[in-house]
Amino acid sequence: DENLKIFALNSNKPLAEKIAATVGVPLGKTSVDRFSDGEIRINIEESIRGDNIYIIQSTSAPVNDNLMELLIMIDALRRASAKTINVVIPYYGYARQDRKARSREPITAKLVANMLQKDGVDRLITLDLHAAQIQGFFDIPVDHLMGAPLLADYFLDHDFEEDTVIVSPDHGGVSRARALAEFLEKPIAIIDKRRPEANVAEIMNIIGNVKGKRCLMIDDMIDTAGTITLGAQALMDAGAKEVYACCTHPVLSGPAIDRIAKSPIKKLVITDTIKLPEEKQIDKIVKVSVGPLIGDAIKRINENKPVSPLFKNRFH
Amino acid sequence: DENLKIFALNSNKPLAEKIAATVGVPLGKTSVDRFSDGEIRINIEESIRGDNIYIIQSTSAPVNDNLMELLIMIDALRRASAKTINVVIPYYGYARQDRKARSREPITAKLVANMLQKDGVDRLITLDLHAAQIQGFFDIPVDHLMGAPLLADYFLDHDFEEDTVIVSPDHGGVSRARALAEFLEKPIAIIDKRRPEANVAEIMNIIGNVKGKRCLMIDDMIDTAGTITLGAQALMDAGAKEVYACCTHPVLSGPAIDRIAKSPIKKLVITDTIKLPEEKQIDKIVKVSVGPLIGDAIKRINENKPVSPLFKNRFH
Ligand SMILES: Nc1ncnc2c1ncn2[C@@H]1O[C@H](COP(=O)(O)O)[C@@H](O)[C@H]1O
Ligand SMILES: Nc1ncnc2c1ncn2[C@@H]1O[C@H](COP(=O)(O)O)[C@@H](O)[C@H]1O
Repeated sequence: DENLKIFALNSNKPLAEKIAATVGVPLGKTSVDRFSDGEIRINIEESIRGDNIYIIQSTSAPVNDNLMELLIMIDALRRASAKTINVVIPYYGYARQDRKARSREPITAKLVANMLQKDGVDRLITLDLHAAQIQGFFDIPVDHLMGAPLLADYFLDHDFEEDTVIVSPDHGGVSRARALAEFLEKPIAIIDKRRPEANVAEIMNIIGNVKGKRCLMIDDMIDTAGTITLGAQALMDAGAKEVYACCTHPVLSGPAIDRIAKSPIKKLVITDTIKLPEEKQIDKIVKVSVGPLIGDAIKRINENKPVSPLFKNRFH
Repeated sequence: DENLKIFALNSNKPLAEKIAATVGVPLGKTSVDRFSDGEIRINIEESIRGDNIYIIQSTSAPVNDNLMELLIMIDALRRASAKTINVVIPYYGYARQDRKARSREPITAKLVANMLQKDGVDRLITLDLHAAQIQGFFDIPVDHLMGAPLLADYFLDHDFEEDTVIVSPDHGGVSRARALAEFLEKPIAIIDKRRPEANVAEIMNIIGNVKGKRCLMIDDMIDTAGTITLGAQALMDAGAKEVYACCTHPVLSGPAIDRIAKSPIKKLVITDTIKLPEEKQIDKIVKVSVGPLIGDAIKRINENKPVSPLFKNRFH
């Protein structure tokens, strides 16, 4: 389709290249940089009048800069008479601020949704929202893709082990573990954390049978890696043979890499929704790309075909 | 008034303290910091239900972080049942992206206005917008205060010199120079820049009589200081006795301080709409505070009195 154009902003150009390659178009010509005082300067260097535009931008760190790049780009495209503006946010930042857990808290995930809609976005394509309810913060079509089939695919192709149990590191992630377990046809277990009293260390209790087994933990994101590495230790303490882990969004802030390096986790499989900086590339981290998944989704949307959890694997 | 509360975010706490002191209330209790991954965390540590809130935040560098702090704070206050949310933006960033000068440019000043309005702001108080038309980007009341009377006051109280001419560094700033000239009862001059051909240095022509006189240049903001320092040199070359300069917004990015230090400018008077970092405090820069001006405006608004260009000086 001549009218489909894909533009990359600064958060994740390597992923944008992979998406564009899958779709079979070159990335649109644009420059996105800074004025001397740090304000964002965007130049769209080709006509986009009447085109269906896809912008690729994760709102990962630096989250505020990446978000503003996206909002300003949308403003420029709308004023330049784009036909539709479709926003691909592989990692949707601020997703953990999705409800008032305490008094006087903001709901920043909704604020971001409002800003995108008010700015004129026609459609959102995203992956593994921290809470699926965030889809309801939008009144436009949201295509919510899953990383689990892709991660399942990896484990079927590499290091497959019959005696595997899929582990959710907390209550919140059980449905995700269930999905992965179904793809791999394995049982699940849950790490049940509770704090008997305030200011006392959490007790980790394992629900399910992990003794002598390979444990494969799954989470939507790994941020400081506290949950996943403490969980891995608890699994080893409970007699697991070995621990693997996987997640869609490698936030990996602060002590994360150090904790993962020192943990009993043998291998961590991540995706490229967030660009992993060189210095965080340690041996036990393996990356699979969501580029083909997102590229396929864009092709289907552009051909008016349904977008189901797309993946080119044996479950398809 | 018990129901008036002032909250400071991170861009300019010293100014917020001065404003609160003028109004006669303590700053509201809040903490505004970052999660490990850089996302903004806001805790409002006192009840604000039914209160008239004033938030003080300049959208100066780091502009995207400061803007998001403001937007998230507004979201939290609205959800916590504030009666009115009044936003004080002493320096309104992105104000130079206020029109499409070329094809496919964004109008970021309007985007920011939309985001603030959609977020539930009731009123905006700001100073010396780069273009007064930005007021029209809002459909809520905007109090647009002027720095010129304050700067005039400074020059009446210090180094007053009869034989002064007020100089606009370019065409765009003539009305601002005219306003200062009226306060000081002095004539004006204009630096007329033009580029005879592309890729040729600009020619600076001075309209008005500056020979043997003290020149006082005024601009709304000084960013990289190219305009003001080249202008100062052109004035000296045209026989000016000496050059003073003043502005409301000390953006002072990149080479600014170095250029000012090396320029013929004897003294630069700025305000504190933007916090000047320690390392930029050079001897020839003098600061006057807009704290009393903004504090007075807040008191008047809260008493339902008109807010005119407020200043406690001899023109009042
Ligand atoms: N960027 C962040 N980093 C760490 N914690 C966060 C972040 N954003 C929100 N939170 C907190 O995480 C909690 C929600 O996480 P969850 O229970 O996993 O949905 C809330 O208490 C939030 O205050
Ligand atoms: N932060 C900035 N720093 C420098 N130039 C800018 C900035 N934002 C916008 N501009 C440009 O400044 C011009 C408008 O400035 P002015 O003519 O003074 O209103 C436009 O060409 C903008 O592209």
